[in-house]
Amino acid sequence: MKSNSTNLRVRLPALIFALEVMIVVLYFVFVTYDDHANALLQNNKTRPMENSLYQNYPFFADIQVMIFLGFGCLLAFFRRYGFGGMVFNFLIATFTIQWAILVQGFFQFYYDGKIHLGVLNLINAEFACAVVLISFGAVLGKTSPVQLLVMALLEIPVFGVTEWAVLKYLKITDAGGSILIHIFACYFGLGVTFVLYRPSLNEGHPKETTSYQSDLLSVMGTLFLWVFWPSFNSALTFKGDDQHRAVLHTFIGLSASTITAFALSSMLSKNGKISMADVQNVTLAGGVTVGASVDMMISPAVAFTLGILGCIACMLGYKYLSPFLARRLRLQDQCGIHNLHGLTGLISSLAGICAILLATEETYGPSLYQTFSHRAPPEGDPLLAKLQVLIPDLEAGLGRSAREQALFQVAAVFGTIAAAAVGGLLTGVVLKLPYLASPSDEKCFDDELFFDVPPDYNCVNGPQDVWSYVLRDTNKIDAD
Amino acid sequence: MKSNSTNLRVRLPALIFALEVMIVVLYFVFVTYDDHANALLQNNKTRPMENSLYQNYPFFADIQVMIFLGFGCLLAFFRRYGFGGMVFNFLIATFTIQWAILVQGFFQFYYDGKIHLGVLNLINAEFACAVVLISFGAVLGKTSPVQLLVMALLEIPVFGVTEWAVLKYLKITDAGGSILIHIFACYFGLGVTFVLYRPSLNEGHPKETTSYQSDLLSVMGTLFLWVFWPSFNSALTFKGDDQHRAVLHTFIGLSASTITAFALSSMLSKNGKISMADVQNVTLAGGVTVGASVDMMISPAVAFTLGILGCIACMLGYKYLSPFLARRLRLQDQCGIHNLHGLTGLISSLAGICAILLATEETYGPSLYQTFSHRAPPEGDPLLAKLQVLIPDLEAGLGRSAREQALFQVAAVFGTIAAAAVGGLLTGVVLKLPYLASPSDEKCFDDELFFDVPPDYNCVNGPQDVWSYVLRDTNKIDAD
Amino acid sequence: MKSNSTNLRVRLPALIFALEVMIVVLYFVFVTYDDHANALLQNNKTRPMENSLYQNYPFFADIQVMIFLGFGCLLAFFRRYGFGGMVFNFLIATFTIQWAILVQGFFQFYYDGKIHLGVLNLINAEFACAVVLISFGAVLGKTSPVQLLVMALLEIPVFGVTEWAVLKYLKITDAGGSILIHIFACYFGLGVTFVLYRPSLNEGHPKETTSYQSDLLSVMGTLFLWVFWPSFNSALTFKGDDQHRAVLHTFIGLSASTITAFALSSMLSKNGKISMADVQNVTLAGGVTVGASVDMMISPAVAFTLGILGCIACMLGYKYLSPFLARRLRLQDQCGIHNLHGLTGLISSLAGICAILLATEETYGPSLYQTFSHRAPPEGDPLLAKLQVLIPDLEAGLGRSAREQALFQVAAVFGTIAAAAVGGLLTGVVLKLPYLASPSDEKCFDDELFFDVPPDYNCVNGPQDVWSYVLRDTNKIDAD
Repeated sequence: MKSNSTNLRVRLPALIFALEVMIVVLYFVFVTYDDHANALLQNNKTRPMENSLYQNYPFFADIQVMIFLGFGCLLAFFRRYGFGGMVFNFLIATFTIQWAILVQGFFQFYYDGKIHLGVLNLINAEFACAVVLISFGAVLGKTSPVQLLVMALLEIPVFGVTEWAVLKYLKITDAGGSILIHIFACYFGLGVTFVLYRPSLNEGHPKETTSYQSDLLSVMGTLFLWVFWPSFNSALTFKGDDQHRAVLHTFIGLSASTITAFALSSMLSKNGKISMADVQNVTLAGGVTVGASVDMMISPAVAFTLGILGCIACMLGYKYLSPFLARRLRLQDQCGIHNLHGLTGLISSLAGICAILLATEETYGPSLYQTFSHRAPPEGDPLLAKLQVLIPDLEAGLGRSAREQALFQVAAVFGTIAAAAVGGLLTGVVLKLPYLASPSDEKCFDDELFFDVPPDYNCVNGPQDVWSYVLRDTNKIDAD
Repeated sequence: MKSNSTNLRVRLPALIFALEVMIVVLYFVFVTYDDHANALLQNNKTRPMENSLYQNYPFFADIQVMIFLGFGCLLAFFRRYGFGGMVFNFLIATFTIQWAILVQGFFQFYYDGKIHLGVLNLINAEFACAVVLISFGAVLGKTSPVQLLVMALLEIPVFGVTEWAVLKYLKITDAGGSILIHIFACYFGLGVTFVLYRPSLNEGHPKETTSYQSDLLSVMGTLFLWVFWPSFNSALTFKGDDQHRAVLHTFIGLSASTITAFALSSMLSKNGKISMADVQNVTLAGGVTVGASVDMMISPAVAFTLGILGCIACMLGYKYLSPFLARRLRLQDQCGIHNLHGLTGLISSLAGICAILLATEETYGPSLYQTFSHRAPPEGDPLLAKLQVLIPDLEAGLGRSAREQALFQVAAVFGTIAAAAVGGLLTGVVLKLPYLASPSDEKCFDDELFFDVPPDYNCVNGPQDVWSYVLRDTNKIDAD
Repeated sequence: MKSNSTNLRVRLPALIFALEVMIVVLYFVFVTYDDHANALLQNNKTRPMENSLYQNYPFFADIQVMIFLGFGCLLAFFRRYGFGGMVFNFLIATFTIQWAILVQGFFQFYYDGKIHLGVLNLINAEFACAVVLISFGAVLGKTSPVQLLVMALLEIPVFGVTEWAVLKYLKITDAGGSILIHIFACYFGLGVTFVLYRPSLNEGHPKETTSYQSDLLSVMGTLFLWVFWPSFNSALTFKGDDQHRAVLHTFIGLSASTITAFALSSMLSKNGKISMADVQNVTLAGGVTVGASVDMMISPAVAFTLGILGCIACMLGYKYLSPFLARRLRLQDQCGIHNLHGLTGLISSLAGICAILLATEETYGPSLYQTFSHRAPPEGDPLLAKLQVLIPDLEAGLGRSAREQALFQVAAVFGTIAAAAVGGLLTGVVLKLPYLASPSDEKCFDDELFFDVPPDYNCVNGPQDVWSYVLRDTNKIDAD
């Protein structure tokens, strides 16, 4: 086995079987059922229809569609890399969720010596999965499935630790995951792609284009993400009015960024034509931008405004920043994740901080201390008992002021960026190791390298192909 | 900027930004949260899990899929207008919902000087959106995105007023929206297309065909609509048994029209072959036909029969009526909305009227006055108090007889047709104004006009293209 | 009308109209509403939000997507049989559900002289539909729609009787339907394809290949099935922790089989490349394998292991068993249902039996007698009253021991295989009758036989086509 071969025959099975043995052993030793999934704990006081399943499963199902169909189709936009986009997404997502169940489980659902598994863990794991898939966008078409699995293997622990540290020590408010999901994923992905820099790709690659069908498929992916994004942003908020607002804001934010994207796409193109890449990506900016304040009383108009701002930043990023990053900073960001997740994530974090600073009891009533749970009075404070009369479910908090909370949010942003970037750089170094089947420059964006392709693969994907096929055949006939 | 140019570079951004400024300002001034989304109104008497979100969101999510993926894929059936079908659907739907939140908000959710926004408004707005998208079907491929936005801008207020007048003054029963959604949308769309008549298109247009892939994509759209139609028809019924029946009838009606469509498609074709256009459209007729009586005790067998009748009318419409309308009445109905929404809507209204006339307390018990809420005794009537013992949630009504209710339904049908047709005609006149980037006849059904198309656009979409490409290249080579 | 013609013009409408008349009459005479859909039974004691609709509809909606989009896209994998795969799936599924409502209704929901219809029946009917669609996989591309309808017409009663007998007399535990759905469907389909054996197809058929687009579409089908499979496996379990576990196990099982499938696919291919057929099919093996024990306390690790085992069996089946069956046993299994549903179903049944034998009160607590309802003490047993204090909803059972239950499971497996195989063989004989429009060998896997195909049909589906088209045109030009 040559170290630079791209044959998967030994590499991929060897890695997967090793990972599976590890996972099965860890599951056997550590994973048990959550109380709501444990038959032993059911009795005359538990009511079946009050099982947490019914609160979580609908959101989980929607997020499943986003992860497997939304990302899958969206990433299938290259004309000769549709299999790679959709199928590697499938592989990576599946492995990542298995792995995140363990890693997040140790940090968040571990007690009595066991990880307690319920649908809530699956939702958390799908969030971790979204992180890996976003990072994957930076290196799409330039990495082997072996490299992608290694990347997922390394990214999840870095993410798990960062998430745990930020939630446990900084205790931030970030319902839509703007900081922990989008910003983390973006800077991790940029770290990886920085190390995997391929100078020749800056000259353009003949296969780095779309086809009519791949563009349509990719828009379908966008639509799956668009349609279910309200479920994504609201899955982990408080139940009730918080979740209700999260749905509304996400819808409005996406909706604003969508029509803005159409305006900007035709405005910034030479001939006034709409670019499908913009339709596929920039329309989604609003979903990220409302994230950090998605459950707060920011008002529908502000959600709309955030959608517009996110869209503008994202569009300008694609147009002007991405080419600069690729040429000057070695950041070849294949899907432009820095625009769709980085810039928008930063705007979102800023908006979240403003929303925190402006939040008052006048606007929220006593449920202020529920939405901003760390501002609730600490255990023992007589104010807490008073508030609990008004909001019986209210839990004790830390008694933070708005300004304190805002400072912790700022710390979380910088901390997350640092952890992600360093983690990404180190992961990139690992991915450069030999034996990981990294494709050569000319074999990038090409399904033929890793897939058995159907007979029409060399033909239907563009006029060049048809013509070269015809010529080849003509020569054959002439030779006869 | 020439008045007849189709360059979007200035037109589209100018219109969108103007609309956005208007919307943002109106949102800032008028839109606030619904009680269930307002943190201030949460207290020890509101239970989070009883938030209206949980009753409405699952239906909303299903309708989202119908609007964005269902309509989007279905309308992508032209071989060279897949981007236009799917992407303009995305743009128009998004704008329409934003706009309908305001317009319907003023008519239905306005009090204390504010529009109160919750997921329920979003469902209503998606219904309004379905109206615009159905009308869009009449002019698909013949209109610019600027024209489509203007159409949506005008259609929503006409729809909003009509809906408000019909619900407030005529007080009809129309759970599945056969009258207000399907009939309105159909006659509005016909009005528009009447004014936008293009004689040359009656001769046939070379690009007015499908491709193998576009046909498959369009069937996927049909399937998305089919699968979630029960959610659409039941989203706004009374909760409980009414909603349960709405789901059952919609499923049965669709199911009956589907197998009938296969029979008629092969029976009415010259060579006994099934037409994909029929599979894409006629199969859905049953969903409309059961609409007006969808929550009533019509019996499963009648729902089945309605599905068959709707399918027959729809199929005969496609076969014989549409060509006649196009040639004789200037009604070029691109997707045949008159067959799928008009004829079936009329049948549905008639069926609804029969179901109203036949409804008795024997069949419904006291909940007759819930399903037919306007037949409930008025406030103060001693009968009301009696009934409220049996059905505690029962609200006071108008004490209408079945016959009175039926007459109001008839009035609603005619009133809706009139309002829609006049609104459509006037909108059509506006769409003929200069500067709206209306495509020339030969550029209809062609994505190249408004989109940056990928390199294979001129090749893979049909044998003609391949051949012309080959010839062009041969000549080039010869010239060398 | 020739007996061997494949023209559908008379055959298909005649059959469909006959079936519809039968169904409408039976619906009129026998089908009424379930109590939860019956307005007459609503009163001050029924609470609308406790209607069974809200427990069942979300699962029903997910399964709808699986049946119509999941199976539809998955079966569209042949390059020239995309319409056939997706559209015949649509037709057959629709008819099957209508028919299963009646057949299962007579066996399971019949009392007071009526079949009582609610969303629960629809879920059951969609399960019956899955049975027919799986069997359809064995004969995909080799049968006319007339034959397929006849197959559905016959399979449903055989299935209905088997299901009724097994549930009523053997009283087995099989929440995910491994025995009744997957094993039945597999052996029925094998019976049919045995009789319809076409020796010439063993030599390979020029149209029996995929295209780039058809492979992508088929993977989308796989993803729809994958994403919603937890809903399928858990739809009919007990509510509460049982359903919670079913969701978890299905997700974990699928997830394990997915990554295993990638490993095996590249390991078993000559050049280390991943095969799309494996991605489309073998990834799903885990969903079947966990089926029979899906609601039991088997532990997440065992669900993971079952996914791996199912995947290995399925993959080896595709690689070695299918070719053998086709050549030696006349079993031309087009989609390899014996691998994906048969072998995995057997493993699942075995796992279910082990789980039954190992189930103790220590693991389950008193809810042991709910999950394994036939082990509950019989009516009158004082133990029952004791248990009902702990689990109030517990119903009386048969007082079976674990070993007894296991033996009944074994009997159910063999009985189901026997009934399915005999039913399939007899159905195959019926399908060989004349006038059923059976395609000739060379017209198999070809949409042109039964569909009006678009102009590009003869061109874009493969290099051969393009070239032959070019040549044909060249000759035409030369002739001019």
